[in-house]
Amino acid sequence: MTRSGGTPHKVVVIGAGFAGLQFIHDLRHPSAAITLVDRRNHHLFQPLLYQVATTVLATSEIAWPVRHLFRDRSDVETLLGEVAGIDRAQRRVLLKDGGALAFDTLVVATGTRHAYFGHDDWEAFAPGLKTLEDATTIRRRVLLAFEQAERESDPERREALLTFAIIGAGPTGVELAGMIAELAHYTLPREFRRIDTRRARILLIEGGPRVLPVFSTPLSAYAEASLKELGVEVSTSSRVTDCGPDGVRIGDTAIACRTIIWAAGVEASPAAKWLDAEADRAGRVIVRPDLTLPGDAAIFVVGDTAAVMQDGKPVPGLAPAAKQQGAYAAKVVRRRLDGKTAPPPFRYWHQGSLATIGKHAAIIEYGRFNFRGWMAWWLWGIAHIYFLIGTRSRFAVAWSWLWNYLTGIHSARLITQREVIKEVIKET
Amino acid sequence: MTRSGGTPHKVVVIGAGFAGLQFIHDLRHPSAAITLVDRRNHHLFQPLLYQVATTVLATSEIAWPVRHLFRDRSDVETLLGEVAGIDRAQRRVLLKDGGALAFDTLVVATGTRHAYFGHDDWEAFAPGLKTLEDATTIRRRVLLAFEQAERESDPERREALLTFAIIGAGPTGVELAGMIAELAHYTLPREFRRIDTRRARILLIEGGPRVLPVFSTPLSAYAEASLKELGVEVSTSSRVTDCGPDGVRIGDTAIACRTIIWAAGVEASPAAKWLDAEADRAGRVIVRPDLTLPGDAAIFVVGDTAAVMQDGKPVPGLAPAAKQQGAYAAKVVRRRLDGKTAPPPFRYWHQGSLATIGKHAAIIEYGRFNFRGWMAWWLWGIAHIYFLIGTRSRFAVAWSWLWNYLTGIHSARLITQREVIKEVIKET
Repeated sequence: MTRSGGTPHKVVVIGAGFAGLQFIHDLRHPSAAITLVDRRNHHLFQPLLYQVATTVLATSEIAWPVRHLFRDRSDVETLLGEVAGIDRAQRRVLLKDGGALAFDTLVVATGTRHAYFGHDDWEAFAPGLKTLEDATTIRRRVLLAFEQAERESDPERREALLTFAIIGAGPTGVELAGMIAELAHYTLPREFRRIDTRRARILLIEGGPRVLPVFSTPLSAYAEASLKELGVEVSTSSRVTDCGPDGVRIGDTAIACRTIIWAAGVEASPAAKWLDAEADRAGRVIVRPDLTLPGDAAIFVVGDTAAVMQDGKPVPGLAPAAKQQGAYAAKVVRRRLDGKTAPPPFRYWHQGSLATIGKHAAIIEYGRFNFRGWMAWWLWGIAHIYFLIGTRSRFAVAWSWLWNYLTGIHSARLITQREVIKEVIKET
Repeated sequence: MTRSGGTPHKVVVIGAGFAGLQFIHDLRHPSAAITLVDRRNHHLFQPLLYQVATTVLATSEIAWPVRHLFRDRSDVETLLGEVAGIDRAQRRVLLKDGGALAFDTLVVATGTRHAYFGHDDWEAFAPGLKTLEDATTIRRRVLLAFEQAERESDPERREALLTFAIIGAGPTGVELAGMIAELAHYTLPREFRRIDTRRARILLIEGGPRVLPVFSTPLSAYAEASLKELGVEVSTSSRVTDCGPDGVRIGDTAIACRTIIWAAGVEASPAAKWLDAEADRAGRVIVRPDLTLPGDAAIFVVGDTAAVMQDGKPVPGLAPAAKQQGAYAAKVVRRRLDGKTAPPPFRYWHQGSLATIGKHAAIIEYGRFNFRGWMAWWLWGIAHIYFLIGTRSRFAVAWSWLWNYLTGIHSARLITQREVIKEVIKET
């Protein structure tokens, strides 16, 4: 697959997440013509999405129009479109509107979506957090619960409105629980006249034995203690058996609550189906050590969509892992286009794990080093601002955080999308 | 209506716009208990709404949760609720969910909505700009038009996608046309590969003989020249006779375009119907010189919902006029509660008119003084930042503007609300 005369080598990238963008960033080659297709017009900085859901950041502070990011790359074309399938025999990506994109090399980087483990009917009551709309939906539900509680005269219904259940104590669940607790216990109390928002219950429900299981036991215990200090009720080893309009059920115990958030699990996008490829239990495509599809070296699967094993363990579904895979695939393609030999197999380099708990505590695991407390929080903040794209967003987010840190005021407390408000109010 | 023993005087305010907020701000009285009801949870700074629609500002930069604004006023209670009617005999405001709010004094400040002059079916094709959702709808349509044009192979359909019609050349229409022209002609060109966004047509269609008719003829002419310099095609004395999925019709001429924005007219909220009161042609409630309802001194109608005549001319529907009316009504109520005589009738004090054209020009009329050009633009910006609520928003908006001014980059170019995207794409 060396450079072929005058016709460019057509590279199609599906998905403008961390893996896809890193691939394009690194694949600069005179004979490559890249087409990036995504069903959204923006790249989303998912690690901070929970801050939109909890009213700290504005949507535009963590999302950037994809075509703007590649405005100076004349070799990159951006298309807004939804993929319907992949025709491997004809080497074409099929779009839902009937269009098709021919490729010589294909990079599938379509990420994950939340999974309800066979309980898809729970989604209506327990939304997950993957897109900007998910974040504004959760924001709306949380804020509306307080508004409705203020107008509710029945004590039982009021209590259900003031109970928030977050299912899953991975980083997203912990971050959401911490921020909602802060909102209820510190930001809102002075603003309501009939309810005491400090009495709101925030439940963090985890099936496993401890919160943040990817961290070491001491850090995990510190995180749990910090959550409790913020007023979060942590239930570990608790299995959710039902989600519905009236609340959640843990084992045989029903808990009345009107706001449920799902942070318990994800599954890969339908990439395996499109490719008719072998997938693991979470739907992630099994790839070879060079991240290509077994039997089809022209197709790469990278990021959360790929099941990459290393030393007997799966590479975690984190932004740095996705970026490293995107970079690796770009290197392979570049070397192919130059007629060089393939690089050694992909190796994931774990840069560390971070998680925040509310506004003052965080935990960081970096090799043998552990950090926790407010210093870790500042390090976490600086690292995330560094990874944001563009000077403007860095300043805007830094400003929003500084403001929130100093005043405790959340600046994006908007209930939007009126039609839905009406529905929710009617439901009451 | 003097202070009556221990029971507080119940004041209900409908609407958290400029008039309602100013009223509450000014009515601080030991015997008044105020309830503010609005169907939205936020106050919206409408003068800058067009900047959300044109991707310069984020939604949360121009909207603030109402209850946050009055968090320190224990005499003020905020309710999220939609008004269904007013029972004047029983002195109650009826809410859509069945609730009711008793009042001794009522302030109706529910503003306006866009009016299609008997052509309500045009609304689906030509959305107006009144709410945050209106702004994100317009933002989505404008951005999607460019995305779809990039994928359209038929030249005629592509041209229709790249034609934007703004109907009505008042301040909102002029501001929208200027910003969309800037977006198309200066911000986007480098980001598209198949279309030349500089060839996009931005049409500003006005029924009257000139743009910005509230300004003097020379300033109006300057505004028109500035618009043309930005690439806006201005058509005055042009009557729109139809709006539909294929475009607009001016007189007998059909113009193919896929994005239409309605900035041509407003009508008052249904307050007159609720009150069973006399209204003018635009639905505004006829009030007495003290802004109360004829025959019912306990009910005030203020802001854009009221038809206030002064020296034979109607007081304009501007934020300063609404604020002055809110302040006046508060003064009347305060004096009544203190057992004092009524103040002299309401007098509107015109502080001046401002309008911007794109990013570098503005016109200001201040009594006998006129300003125009870039100095006026800076004055306009400073005035608007000053009027924003809260230090945080002031900094955030100043930063967004400075960034846009220096780099030309629009920072909130998000297409959100996926369901709608799908629909629009299907329509194509």
